[in-house]
Amino acid sequence: MRQIEIIGIGTGNPEHLTVQAINAMNRADVIFIPTKGAEKDGLAGIRREICGRYLTAGNTAIVEFAVPKRLTAGQTYLQSVGEWHAALADVYVSLIETLPQPGVGAFLVWGDPGLYDSTIRILDRARSLKSVDFDFTVIPGITSIQALTASHRIPLNLLGKPVEITTGRRLAASGNQADSTVVMLDGELAFSKIDDSEAEIFWGAYLGTPDEITHAGRLSDVASDIVRSRAEARARHGWIMDIYLLRKGHDFDDL
Amino acid sequence: MRQIEIIGIGTGNPEHLTVQAINAMNRADVIFIPTKGAEKDGLAGIRREICGRYLTAGNTAIVEFAVPKRLTAGQTYLQSVGEWHAALADVYVSLIETLPQPGVGAFLVWGDPGLYDSTIRILDRARSLKSVDFDFTVIPGITSIQALTASHRIPLNLLGKPVEITTGRRLAASGNQADSTVVMLDGELAFSKIDDSEAEIFWGAYLGTPDEITHAGRLSDVASDIVRSRAEARARHGWIMDIYLLRKGHDFDDL
Ligand SMILES: C[S@@+](CC[C@H](N)C(=O)[O-])C[C@H]1O[C@@H](n2cnc3c(N)ncnc32)[C@H](O)[C@@H]1O
Ligand SMILES: C[S@@+](CC[C@H](N)C(=O)[O-])C[C@H]1O[C@@H](n2cnc3c(N)ncnc32)[C@H](O)[C@@H]1O
Repeated sequence: MRQIEIIGIGTGNPEHLTVQAINAMNRADVIFIPTKGAEKDGLAGIRREICGRYLTAGNTAIVEFAVPKRLTAGQTYLQSVGEWHAALADVYVSLIETLPQPGVGAFLVWGDPGLYDSTIRILDRARSLKSVDFDFTVIPGITSIQALTASHRIPLNLLGKPVEITTGRRLAASGNQADSTVVMLDGELAFSKIDDSEAEIFWGAYLGTPDEITHAGRLSDVASDIVRSRAEARARHGWIMDIYLLRKGHDFDDL
Repeated sequence: MRQIEIIGIGTGNPEHLTVQAINAMNRADVIFIPTKGAEKDGLAGIRREICGRYLTAGNTAIVEFAVPKRLTAGQTYLQSVGEWHAALADVYVSLIETLPQPGVGAFLVWGDPGLYDSTIRILDRARSLKSVDFDFTVIPGITSIQALTASHRIPLNLLGKPVEITTGRRLAASGNQADSTVVMLDGELAFSKIDDSEAEIFWGAYLGTPDEITHAGRLSDVASDIVRSRAEARARHGWIMDIYLLRKGHDFDDL
């Protein structure tokens, strides 16, 4: 049977790779690398660097594949994502069909494969098509949440308190509720619309890469600096990935 | 100045170590390893194995230190934790004072140093005592959340939906609210008291170690199996660390 390794590679620092990830890469006959067009060339570049640095098996093929565009016209978000996943499942099937049998293929997934990523979902879907027989394993990776708190040298949670992980879209819709809220996938700068005199923000972009930027402080003091710094960096690089933690209160407040 | 590296080591699989973590270990003059008494000997053993496997610098000292007991009598939870952190900060100061100057010390933290761990907090406190001058960096690690979803080969979140990370104590107090809830530090089997015919559970113990156990299914179908399997494993090993994801609904439910 063919085997697929879904490998978390961390968030841009090649040293985020785990020993488990490096060993899985070296078990692969083929590593599949997505190319997404200009704005994501930086990411394909980091994947190529990781292959150059850690592949020692000597006979690993690297196959780039184009990711189909998600079409949104005349559809709800979920309809559009459903169709896109179906198209990607077909692409994955045709990639897996090129593998030797038995043989091992690998996908290098940004951060951790479980966190706001659909590689697992799409491979589940590809398997259910039953046109090619394969199994898969998942190798955990450093997430952008861990990269954020490490760069700010802070704990993620307040003592014994919960943490919410959410998206910019949902933060905009429901406001800043939890003690600690991690916001990802925020293209709409939802933090800048929050009016909460108590909140602190810990923000980071391009975390783990040489272009890493961070800002921290009381949200009302630093929000406009972040908006400015984000716009400037995005214009310079042509793309941005940023994440932040919003926090209310302190560890021993309820003492 | 003295430098401390707070190094995330993942959750029991020595292959969870990142290249960044291995490099930081090898920069250290001294690695400090906590010993917590019988029930946690397994954990000190894994830290020693990690040192044996990855230290190549040749001159790294390994210093074990006893962790003071947290006293709870006649105090609230936060009072007790506050006193315990103060005692630990004193211990850390005396460890750091033994370092050469300049010199590098390292703490190997289970999972990621940001997630339900107080090493960062205690080093902040030790620094504020100003009796020994040092700085610190944080190296991210694979968390038990990533280990859980990788073993179950599932995404952490439903498509575009939020995730709550919480403790057994809080789940017991507030019930199963979110679409996806990760529960850690649950000594009271809070999942077994939840009456929710819709909920699914993905449970794992000793994740990443050779003793790893997992269970998944509809909560009402598998809760009693998990309770039994947990009690049996705990009796056999003398300790247990377990985590689970509770989930309601499916990815394309709102289509
Ligand atoms: C599609 S999700 C993938 C998350 C990834 N699987 C992980 O584990 O971090 C992309 C979002 O992750 C966050 N992100 C990923 N890498 C990042 C980085 N290097 N710096 C800042 N944010 C990052 C951003 O919020 C971005 O919008
Ligand atoms: C004090 S917290 C430390 C968490 C750690 N810093 C991390 O990143 O996973 C301990 C809790 O983490 C979870 N945990 C840690 N390691 C685990 C493992 N190998 N298997 C299952 N759960 C684990 C359990 O919920 C446990 O009660």
